[in-house]
Amino acid sequence: MKALAPQHPEWKTKQPFAALLKGDLKGAFAGGDHAILELVMATHAGMTTAEFEQIVKDWLATAKHPKFKQPYTACVYQPMVELLAYLRANGFKTFIVSGGGIEFMRPWAEQVYGVPPEQVIGSSIMTKFEMRDGKPVLVRLPEINFIDDKAGKPVGINQHIGRRPIAAFGNSDGDKEMLEYTQGGSGARFMLLVLHDDAAREYAYGPAQGLPDAKLGAFTPALYEQAKKDGWTVVSMKNDWNHIFGFEK
Amino acid sequence: MKALAPQHPEWKTKQPFAALLKGDLKGAFAGGDHAILELVMATHAGMTTAEFEQIVKDWLATAKHPKFKQPYTACVYQPMVELLAYLRANGFKTFIVSGGGIEFMRPWAEQVYGVPPEQVIGSSIMTKFEMRDGKPVLVRLPEINFIDDKAGKPVGINQHIGRRPIAAFGNSDGDKEMLEYTQGGSGARFMLLVLHDDAAREYAYGPAQGLPDAKLGAFTPALYEQAKKDGWTVVSMKNDWNHIFGFEK
Repeated sequence: MKALAPQHPEWKTKQPFAALLKGDLKGAFAGGDHAILELVMATHAGMTTAEFEQIVKDWLATAKHPKFKQPYTACVYQPMVELLAYLRANGFKTFIVSGGGIEFMRPWAEQVYGVPPEQVIGSSIMTKFEMRDGKPVLVRLPEINFIDDKAGKPVGINQHIGRRPIAAFGNSDGDKEMLEYTQGGSGARFMLLVLHDDAAREYAYGPAQGLPDAKLGAFTPALYEQAKKDGWTVVSMKNDWNHIFGFEK
Repeated sequence: MKALAPQHPEWKTKQPFAALLKGDLKGAFAGGDHAILELVMATHAGMTTAEFEQIVKDWLATAKHPKFKQPYTACVYQPMVELLAYLRANGFKTFIVSGGGIEFMRPWAEQVYGVPPEQVIGSSIMTKFEMRDGKPVLVRLPEINFIDDKAGKPVGINQHIGRRPIAAFGNSDGDKEMLEYTQGGSGARFMLLVLHDDAAREYAYGPAQGLPDAKLGAFTPALYEQAKKDGWTVVSMKNDWNHIFGFEK
């Protein structure tokens, strides 16, 4: 963002940009998930989709997670990887439905999760087809196209998949509507939420079950109550998962 | 549209609605493809996606094509069905990328073309997740979400598939940018256009090659020239296809 700020004088007074440029993380995140998405989208506009993909790949090749000291692609949950493989081995088609940027996940989702680009759904900015130096490209525009979170998740699922999921798995309030939509189908359905309650091996946040609050990706007591009432399975990372990451083994 | 008009007084003065309500087809189509899409989208809003799917299925079960006297699902091109099967037998994943409504095609594309709902890309209206009588549904809104035509086709392909096609097949100016985008990839690529030049077995229109003009789905002389210049294969339905429909055999 700092590198791009001179091209965006309006960021000096516009939130969440102004706060972040001053190093005020708390102020920047006060707008919640939507503010974060605006930041991510705005800072990645102007380049082609192919250029953006290369930046993601270059970053993943070198960056390490500050807590786990591993490449980010290694910091995926081992039980999630095993579940995806198990579902596919039993004839299911698996999709990722994330609040994160669709173009950020696609370059690595197939290698890490076995989910090809066309089965990744996420938030996106607008793109525009144009000829650049005689080559047909898609240019990323500084305008949000779709936010794949909360009530947006069923919309994104219908737009991309065109059928109701048989099973859905989440870990925050942003997944509530996706699980409701899944449960609303006929026949057997399965809904599951993962609770991050393991401060030692990963993180602990809720504020469900008396865990610390979280500005992003909160799992609220209301969601926990709804899960119990509606028969959704809640998994405790601390108590139910032998391993969290593959590199632990 | 006539059944819905009392709920939409603004249609009396707003084009293309006003013209169509007066039975003025020529006036209604004067706005081209975009006007048609507006008509289709507006007349199908307000109901849930599941209700719309049922209407499509009910209509297909009874309606017959006025010229061919066959169900619409039988009026698909036999060479297209064979090509799709051939590509899949050789390890390709096949998608439909249509200017038509995505929710109109999905209920029958798998049975007819072997293409499942999640591999159908098309034009769409906005939808909204809501609880209706305690059931989670998606409601169709009278607002265009995306027009999958012309420069929109590469955008839709990137949004849904996230990679550049290896081969692309079209039949009108609306497919030009999709074929350009396909050709822009590295390695071997294949681009093909079908020319409707068989008035006896199907229709004949261009205005390419001196064929009659078409208000919708035109194949212009400029597109024909570009195909020759860029090495795109042009197929004559009249000269190159032994059969057009499966029911001919």
